[in-house]
Amino acid sequence: MSKNKRSRFKHKRMGEVGDAPGMVRIPDDALKPKITVYSYNEAEVVSSKGDDIGVILDQFAKCKNHTHWIKVNGLGDAALIEKMGELLKINPLVLEDITNTHQRPKFDEYEGYFFATSRIIELSAAQDEIFNTQFSVIVKDDLIISFQEHYNDCFEAVINRLNLSKGAIRTAGPAYMCYALMDTIIDTYFVVLADIGESLDTLEDRLYESADKTIMYDSQHMKRELIMMRKVSWPERDKINDMIRSDSPLITPEVKTYLRDAYDHCIHIMDVIDSYKEITTSIMDLYLSMVSNRMNEIMKVLTIISVIFIPLTFIAGIYGMNFARQDDKGHIIPDNMPELYMHHAYPIALAAMLLIAAGLVFIFWRKGWFNRL
Amino acid sequence: MSKNKRSRFKHKRMGEVGDAPGMVRIPDDALKPKITVYSYNEAEVVSSKGDDIGVILDQFAKCKNHTHWIKVNGLGDAALIEKMGELLKINPLVLEDITNTHQRPKFDEYEGYFFATSRIIELSAAQDEIFNTQFSVIVKDDLIISFQEHYNDCFEAVINRLNLSKGAIRTAGPAYMCYALMDTIIDTYFVVLADIGESLDTLEDRLYESADKTIMYDSQHMKRELIMMRKVSWPERDKINDMIRSDSPLITPEVKTYLRDAYDHCIHIMDVIDSYKEITTSIMDLYLSMVSNRMNEIMKVLTIISVIFIPLTFIAGIYGMNFARQDDKGHIIPDNMPELYMHHAYPIALAAMLLIAAGLVFIFWRKGWFNRL
Amino acid sequence: MSKNKRSRFKHKRMGEVGDAPGMVRIPDDALKPKITVYSYNEAEVVSSKGDDIGVILDQFAKCKNHTHWIKVNGLGDAALIEKMGELLKINPLVLEDITNTHQRPKFDEYEGYFFATSRIIELSAAQDEIFNTQFSVIVKDDLIISFQEHYNDCFEAVINRLNLSKGAIRTAGPAYMCYALMDTIIDTYFVVLADIGESLDTLEDRLYESADKTIMYDSQHMKRELIMMRKVSWPERDKINDMIRSDSPLITPEVKTYLRDAYDHCIHIMDVIDSYKEITTSIMDLYLSMVSNRMNEIMKVLTIISVIFIPLTFIAGIYGMNFARQDDKGHIIPDNMPELYMHHAYPIALAAMLLIAAGLVFIFWRKGWFNRL
Amino acid sequence: MSKNKRSRFKHKRMGEVGDAPGMVRIPDDALKPKITVYSYNEAEVVSSKGDDIGVILDQFAKCKNHTHWIKVNGLGDAALIEKMGELLKINPLVLEDITNTHQRPKFDEYEGYFFATSRIIELSAAQDEIFNTQFSVIVKDDLIISFQEHYNDCFEAVINRLNLSKGAIRTAGPAYMCYALMDTIIDTYFVVLADIGESLDTLEDRLYESADKTIMYDSQHMKRELIMMRKVSWPERDKINDMIRSDSPLITPEVKTYLRDAYDHCIHIMDVIDSYKEITTSIMDLYLSMVSNRMNEIMKVLTIISVIFIPLTFIAGIYGMNFARQDDKGHIIPDNMPELYMHHAYPIALAAMLLIAAGLVFIFWRKGWFNRL
Amino acid sequence: MSKNKRSRFKHKRMGEVGDAPGMVRIPDDALKPKITVYSYNEAEVVSSKGDDIGVILDQFAKCKNHTHWIKVNGLGDAALIEKMGELLKINPLVLEDITNTHQRPKFDEYEGYFFATSRIIELSAAQDEIFNTQFSVIVKDDLIISFQEHYNDCFEAVINRLNLSKGAIRTAGPAYMCYALMDTIIDTYFVVLADIGESLDTLEDRLYESADKTIMYDSQHMKRELIMMRKVSWPERDKINDMIRSDSPLITPEVKTYLRDAYDHCIHIMDVIDSYKEITTSIMDLYLSMVSNRMNEIMKVLTIISVIFIPLTFIAGIYGMNFARQDDKGHIIPDNMPELYMHHAYPIALAAMLLIAAGLVFIFWRKGWFNRL
Repeated sequence: MSKNKRSRFKHKRMGEVGDAPGMVRIPDDALKPKITVYSYNEAEVVSSKGDDIGVILDQFAKCKNHTHWIKVNGLGDAALIEKMGELLKINPLVLEDITNTHQRPKFDEYEGYFFATSRIIELSAAQDEIFNTQFSVIVKDDLIISFQEHYNDCFEAVINRLNLSKGAIRTAGPAYMCYALMDTIIDTYFVVLADIGESLDTLEDRLYESADKTIMYDSQHMKRELIMMRKVSWPERDKINDMIRSDSPLITPEVKTYLRDAYDHCIHIMDVIDSYKEITTSIMDLYLSMVSNRMNEIMKVLTIISVIFIPLTFIAGIYGMNFARQDDKGHIIPDNMPELYMHHAYPIALAAMLLIAAGLVFIFWRKGWFNRL
Repeated sequence: MSKNKRSRFKHKRMGEVGDAPGMVRIPDDALKPKITVYSYNEAEVVSSKGDDIGVILDQFAKCKNHTHWIKVNGLGDAALIEKMGELLKINPLVLEDITNTHQRPKFDEYEGYFFATSRIIELSAAQDEIFNTQFSVIVKDDLIISFQEHYNDCFEAVINRLNLSKGAIRTAGPAYMCYALMDTIIDTYFVVLADIGESLDTLEDRLYESADKTIMYDSQHMKRELIMMRKVSWPERDKINDMIRSDSPLITPEVKTYLRDAYDHCIHIMDVIDSYKEITTSIMDLYLSMVSNRMNEIMKVLTIISVIFIPLTFIAGIYGMNFARQDDKGHIIPDNMPELYMHHAYPIALAAMLLIAAGLVFIFWRKGWFNRL
Repeated sequence: MSKNKRSRFKHKRMGEVGDAPGMVRIPDDALKPKITVYSYNEAEVVSSKGDDIGVILDQFAKCKNHTHWIKVNGLGDAALIEKMGELLKINPLVLEDITNTHQRPKFDEYEGYFFATSRIIELSAAQDEIFNTQFSVIVKDDLIISFQEHYNDCFEAVINRLNLSKGAIRTAGPAYMCYALMDTIIDTYFVVLADIGESLDTLEDRLYESADKTIMYDSQHMKRELIMMRKVSWPERDKINDMIRSDSPLITPEVKTYLRDAYDHCIHIMDVIDSYKEITTSIMDLYLSMVSNRMNEIMKVLTIISVIFIPLTFIAGIYGMNFARQDDKGHIIPDNMPELYMHHAYPIALAAMLLIAAGLVFIFWRKGWFNRL
Repeated sequence: MSKNKRSRFKHKRMGEVGDAPGMVRIPDDALKPKITVYSYNEAEVVSSKGDDIGVILDQFAKCKNHTHWIKVNGLGDAALIEKMGELLKINPLVLEDITNTHQRPKFDEYEGYFFATSRIIELSAAQDEIFNTQFSVIVKDDLIISFQEHYNDCFEAVINRLNLSKGAIRTAGPAYMCYALMDTIIDTYFVVLADIGESLDTLEDRLYESADKTIMYDSQHMKRELIMMRKVSWPERDKINDMIRSDSPLITPEVKTYLRDAYDHCIHIMDVIDSYKEITTSIMDLYLSMVSNRMNEIMKVLTIISVIFIPLTFIAGIYGMNFARQDDKGHIIPDNMPELYMHHAYPIALAAMLLIAAGLVFIFWRKGWFNRL
Repeated sequence: MSKNKRSRFKHKRMGEVGDAPGMVRIPDDALKPKITVYSYNEAEVVSSKGDDIGVILDQFAKCKNHTHWIKVNGLGDAALIEKMGELLKINPLVLEDITNTHQRPKFDEYEGYFFATSRIIELSAAQDEIFNTQFSVIVKDDLIISFQEHYNDCFEAVINRLNLSKGAIRTAGPAYMCYALMDTIIDTYFVVLADIGESLDTLEDRLYESADKTIMYDSQHMKRELIMMRKVSWPERDKINDMIRSDSPLITPEVKTYLRDAYDHCIHIMDVIDSYKEITTSIMDLYLSMVSNRMNEIMKVLTIISVIFIPLTFIAGIYGMNFARQDDKGHIIPDNMPELYMHHAYPIALAAMLLIAAGLVFIFWRKGWFNRL
């Protein structure tokens, strides 16, 4: 179980350089596995829980003509997983992929069974984090084994359908159950996207109402989440396509029809992600353009006020000079600031200043500085 | 029926996480269905209206050797749609796609019939909103069923052609009718594009005449509409291509010739959308460049005025200093501001200021600040 | 005949929403058709002119074992075009494409003939506008019919070659004539590109010699012209490729060799267009970088002058204060501005100012403001 | 052995213009080769070291029914490599590729053997440099020859597995050994990526805590390293794909299963690289946006302070003017600055200034300058 | 022979609009052809020079069982080239392509021979210009004819190998000779790239040491050169690929092995070009970021100095006001500037100013203006 932000910076593959392939390595913080086995046929559903391989063997012995769904939550027990691998004759490379929880969605066919992985994308309860965990599934003749990293259950709806026998779920075989689980996972993507959509809505409102620089950070954050979603849904689509084009006898034509539906949902998700990415980009562009405009406006205010007052202050400075009117001997010094002694000189000077200010305001108005850009 | 802006933020798939596939779920605000049945052959067109499945059964009974076009406007009745599905033996996945109105244009072949969806893009009466609604069509041997989300009718022209028996419409089979409806939908795209083209025209005029920051918002808005149009026309093209390459016996070579024409129209629409997107981008680039230039101009005005007056004001400040000419005892303090007592000092000072100002103006003129960039 | 700028904003398809396919609609400003028929074989070329279908019938009657080239300039007569369609048994969809003059270059094969369109790109006489008009051609067994929107003739060179019997033009059949016309059209693209190349040359010179903001507008204008050229030459290339790969008996291996040559010319044109687009982008980038640098320079001048004079003016302001030396009773107020009464105080103050100014200049010089960026 | 930075600027192919193909040219700074031969079968591992071809011949003679792994570290001896080529009948083009250490990862099949190259990416001990060196391998029937540019050994883990006989390494043939070496090389990519990931972590922390312009340089540096990594892993993936699709009898189906696993690791590496590139780009975007915001803030401070004080200073300037109250004869000059002699004039003036300042602050507050953007 | 800069603006195809295809048109500044014929077999190499077709005929007569390499330098003689075309039965379209020296690299097969073109990219002697000229080659059964635009010889190394009989050059047929010439041309690309790499090195050093605006121009210039190189090497790669996949009997499997080697070199060249383009882009980005930072720094200096001194100057302005202490009758005017008469008022005012300045400096320091961004 890893946070969204964390996961971006911890792509180090489990295991050491030069490890032999097929080695099962469990991260230290993995949860202890809990096993639930559902054995079902058209008539009944029998389930039992446990935390070691015994519960599987018991159920196998008890339910002879049933399809078994072995649901494993938590991967923190290498020995258990290796024992299951031996019991069910699973290739060690598959076991390595189950426990190394950084797989891309993929579909691999082996002799007598197939293996597939998906990414479960879930919002935390507080809706402020996105958890990206791995879901792996092995489908054999009358058997489906699913592995999840954590305990919280996004498959309740499927279990309900199984108990209520809604639709074809009890009769259409383990590949249909595999489809049902994958489709449920894809459905949760819509939930996450709806949450992101609402955040974008809020972000856009903020842009027009009270834009500040956190918009840039939040847009970038949103963009990364969308990139992560895309990175998950792109190979998910490919995986489902591979399943549709597979000629494994496990995947019946009926299941393929449903997979085609899931494929359409993937395409739809990718469309939504693309729309959201474009909206995010456009929010960022608008924000940057607003910053530019803001700068422009600030400069305009500064320039208008400065340019109007600078000449006026200069004039005041002129008449603040101390050029003497009379020399030591009391003679008038010719030409030295006679204005200061003129009648009405002060109101004339004030009027001149007013005139200059008005002229400058007029020039700026003519240049459109008061109403444009 | 959803507004353009809205639709971008509500891509949540109808239904709940973990729903069984093929479940018909109707949004709360869906309109009550109105059914119109047109039964036509070379000789006559018989039509009747109603709001339940009876009208279809009556018409089937009445018109034995006719092609039937069942036109459903409004999707707000799950039971009715499921009844129609049973009557005409339609796969539940198709019914789910009809009522879940966020499908991309697509073409799916089933045994004995095909299913296709398009997006109807229409301007609101006030031309300020774009409605993006779903059109679904099922084509069987002598039957075509069309579904629209709302009542307003963009197919009047087709109904006229049907009544007037213009062209091959009464004789070329239900797939030709399907083509005629799709072609009409594509024609409305040209109407919407023409409206966007006019808005771009206005926007470009505004850019040169009175650019303000709303241009950025409007360009972004236009760009999103174009992206939405592109998102619709791209899979529309693919869908028509799929129909052309389909070997369904329902699609005759004659219909394929017409579909090829519709395909060309799609390509043309995508060309126009691309042109418009490029024009929008170029408007934004020009606007941003104008903002830059405006900033430049503002800075130049500020700089020229400041740089000219700052030294002058400094000189005025110098001669406004109160350094005393005489000490307490009436002795002249040597060197203290003798200029203030010089003959003609004031006009000399003014002349010096004028000279400095002229010099700076000359320097700026030489640097080209008065006529460049 | 439509101007370049106009054409970008008028992509509305001729005809109304819901029109039956194959309907010939003529725009109001279309020119009256003028028909010229050239009937040629190895021995002779017979030509006659007219403005109705009679001239074609006469020529057909007169020249039994000739290849006929019917050259129609102007499309403003729906009846005439429909009559020609009937006479020569042309599909109505083709007639619609001929009169709806916004087709992309394309190649369509029909039973017994093929149809192709090109775009004629021509400079106006004053070289300030680019005309983008449609050229359509139908090739049958011993017949080629060409349609142009306007009267001015870019095919004079071909007619000369026909009259002088240069090359294979009289003997290689109507598809060769079709090639000859298309090749001539492609040749005019080089003329237009050479004109754009010269404009780019001028623009680049202006960039280095006297950059002003019109460069941005002109670059954008150039870019749009290049995008338009690209939009024309891209499908032109595809069309020629379709012709080369066609197995129509009308297109002989000899003609295909020539078409391959024309294909190379198209590739070359697209190369040139790409180069020019890159040059245009690089001009815009350089211009924007110059604007930035200019801003930088302006800010530097403002900052240097302001920062030098602000402290000096402050000092002048200090010594311009009126703190009194003596109180009402004539006692010296202690500490109040004794500097004003110091010997040599004024030159000392001036020297201090000079020192500060020099210090600041030195700091800026050390920071490299006088010679960098 | 070449540093990362260096290598970007030294792509000059070894050899001279016009050289005959297949010529072995050794760079001057190449290390003297050291040869280690491991001969192994299910029972035992025999190894010996040396620096000429004799050690190979001895080992061949000594171990008849073994698989031989000839490990060559250092390429600085053209004669030795040519001798090995002759002994093992290797095409001179292969020898040229081994010594010309700028090959992209590739896989070439020859009669009886195949040749493949990889790039070894290693951190220097001080973790401040990335070494990008070439690994070449030739696989024959019971023989694998590996070439490295330098002595330091990233294959210790493989040698340990060989000695301990872990997994299939002693029995699965030379192609498995080839896979084991390549997989080890790919594992080291994860190590380098983890290091880059940590640097990005630090960079992002710095962005939020103490952003300065070195962030730009460091991001660019990081981006180049990622581009280099991508340039290596992209053809690596293609190479492994080529090996999987090869029908060489040397590559058994068992080895292909393992190669498929290595292929997944390559895809995973490219995913991580893409994530990191996006993070790098987003850090640069955020930094540039911070620079913009910083500028904005600076301008706002300047503008607010300037705009508030400029009018105040102007008013002070007004009352600092020296307009005379009385003329020479002691008559009051009418209107000249009567304010200066009013009662309470000074506190009134100060109050007026305070009012103006407060008004301006209020205006800026209303414009949101104190809390926005 | 055309300069790099020039060539970008002169893409006008030789010949006139509407010219018949296959017409040989020679540009006015083309050089007079010089012909060298090398006739070689395993035993000997016979060569002779001349400037008309006679030298070829002589050599043909003299050397019966030799392979002939006719090397033509200079294309300025249409008659000669047409005569050669007749003699060797070459299609006129090929002759047109040889003389119209703006061909992209391509490979065309004709009956009994093939035709290929390459671009020779060479540095001028002064290393300040790049010459992009055309190399054409026709390969027949025992004959290879090469055409170059100019006299200077980049094939000396090949001629040496021919004379010294190095490698397979005398025995592997004319296609091998064709490969040898093309490989030599590709080798010269590495020389040009090494030169560009050095320029980039210098540019990057300048960026860090003394960035000025010429960096922008130089980067753009470099980028264009790289785009030109890419435009040449991309179709070069395709051409070689076409040759490898060709089933012409002239291209033996042995030659194909060598061509595969040349293909690798092309890929390598394209890798290097891409690296260099990325470095160029990164230099431009860094430069623009430096300009931004510089602006920031300038604004910061301006703002700090202005904001500190503006309030101080205002205070000085306050105490520079002339509000009178006494009215006409000598009565003290109440409240008018009593500070001016306070004891120690002046040092108090100075201290207040110092305090304000220190406070502002502290505020800026707290905001991090002295050490960040």
